[in-house]
Amino acid sequence: MDALEELLAIEHIKRLKARYFRFVDTQDWTGFRRLFTDDAVLEFRETMDEPCSIDAFMDGVRNYLAGVCSVHHGHMPEITIRSSTEASAIWAMDDKLFFSKRTDGPDGIAMVKGYGHYHETYVRQGNEWRISSLRLTRLRLERTLNPRMIA
Amino acid sequence: MDALEELLAIEHIKRLKARYFRFVDTQDWTGFRRLFTDDAVLEFRETMDEPCSIDAFMDGVRNYLAGVCSVHHGHMPEITIRSSTEASAIWAMDDKLFFSKRTDGPDGIAMVKGYGHYHETYVRQGNEWRISSLRLTRLRLERTLNPRMIA
Amino acid sequence: MDALEELLAIEHIKRLKARYFRFVDTQDWTGFRRLFTDDAVLEFRETMDEPCSIDAFMDGVRNYLAGVCSVHHGHMPEITIRSSTEASAIWAMDDKLFFSKRTDGPDGIAMVKGYGHYHETYVRQGNEWRISSLRLTRLRLERTLNPRMIA
Repeated sequence: MDALEELLAIEHIKRLKARYFRFVDTQDWTGFRRLFTDDAVLEFRETMDEPCSIDAFMDGVRNYLAGVCSVHHGHMPEITIRSSTEASAIWAMDDKLFFSKRTDGPDGIAMVKGYGHYHETYVRQGNEWRISSLRLTRLRLERTLNPRMIA
Repeated sequence: MDALEELLAIEHIKRLKARYFRFVDTQDWTGFRRLFTDDAVLEFRETMDEPCSIDAFMDGVRNYLAGVCSVHHGHMPEITIRSSTEASAIWAMDDKLFFSKRTDGPDGIAMVKGYGHYHETYVRQGNEWRISSLRLTRLRLERTLNPRMIA
Repeated sequence: MDALEELLAIEHIKRLKARYFRFVDTQDWTGFRRLFTDDAVLEFRETMDEPCSIDAFMDGVRNYLAGVCSVHHGHMPEITIRSSTEASAIWAMDDKLFFSKRTDGPDGIAMVKGYGHYHETYVRQGNEWRISSLRLTRLRLERTLNPRMIA
């Protein structure tokens, strides 16, 4: 790829990840699923024992976030274009989950606040870049309990 | 537009929105006004009943933020260049307003914390991209009262 | 420089600053030092009386953050390429330092939360852009004391 194609690919991947965050927080699960390749693998160590497929993840996340207000933000990408069809990136991130409107949060949790990095790979399929793998590492994860659970 | 011109326009719009945030938080209202077209329309549903013109907005924001410390951050833009003179974007955002140094915050509010998305359009006038419309939607808005108002 | 070279330089500087944040928060001090020119000057008014050299800074930061969890995020850069070897930028930022795991935070501080702007210059050395000066200005800085220190 020449320099111009590389810059275009970088901007496409930034937009792809922007949609990732927006679709999670607006719970557009149809849009969200399309951002991934069919064989994509995801790894969130805090909520799962081992990496899972995108389709297994979709079932879980839809259920986990039902009735929850979430805010996920990405920051400061380091994107490497490896070829015309392969790329990788590290993104800084923070996220907040507000369970307060739900009568029963999981295990009495009112809020989760986290900080970390996404480590991702991408492949280009036709004109579209898609996420082929995602692994989240954490700098810190805070869980706040509902007041009634603390007593 | 060719691919290079499109990438340049995208970077210009990112810089335009960066100045938007910096000029609000440093209260550079002369710089802020110049980022908008004269006929720009703004819509902040939380503080206004209907969309307003940029000039009406300027009067309000200057007064609302006098003596307040504000921090606004934008994240993860999805920018679409529609033609050589027209573009649109969605930006994730969060903002914090700290009223604590003011003896009287509006209705006893000490702090406002919010999360949401800007939905914007831009036009190019000469060499400058400017904001022609802005609408803020919220994922969540938290207001914290001054302790003396809670009792 | 032509427009394409300018866009490439902008993306390089974004990646440089991304590594700055990641290397601080993962405490990769060898990687961090390499992001700066040998004669770089840094200015953090909140913790130092006057600007210091990068090597003096390295000693201080390593010690200050030992055992501390830090999260630094950059936002909304305004990057100006001044020539093929010189550039400058303003970045919005926020940072959090969590001292809670350390038995003795400095002066009983449990947490520091801050908001502000980096004002930086860069030079290109060979193929690498490096930070040649950095000055942090603050919109707000909050210090939270350990509970036992408050009584």
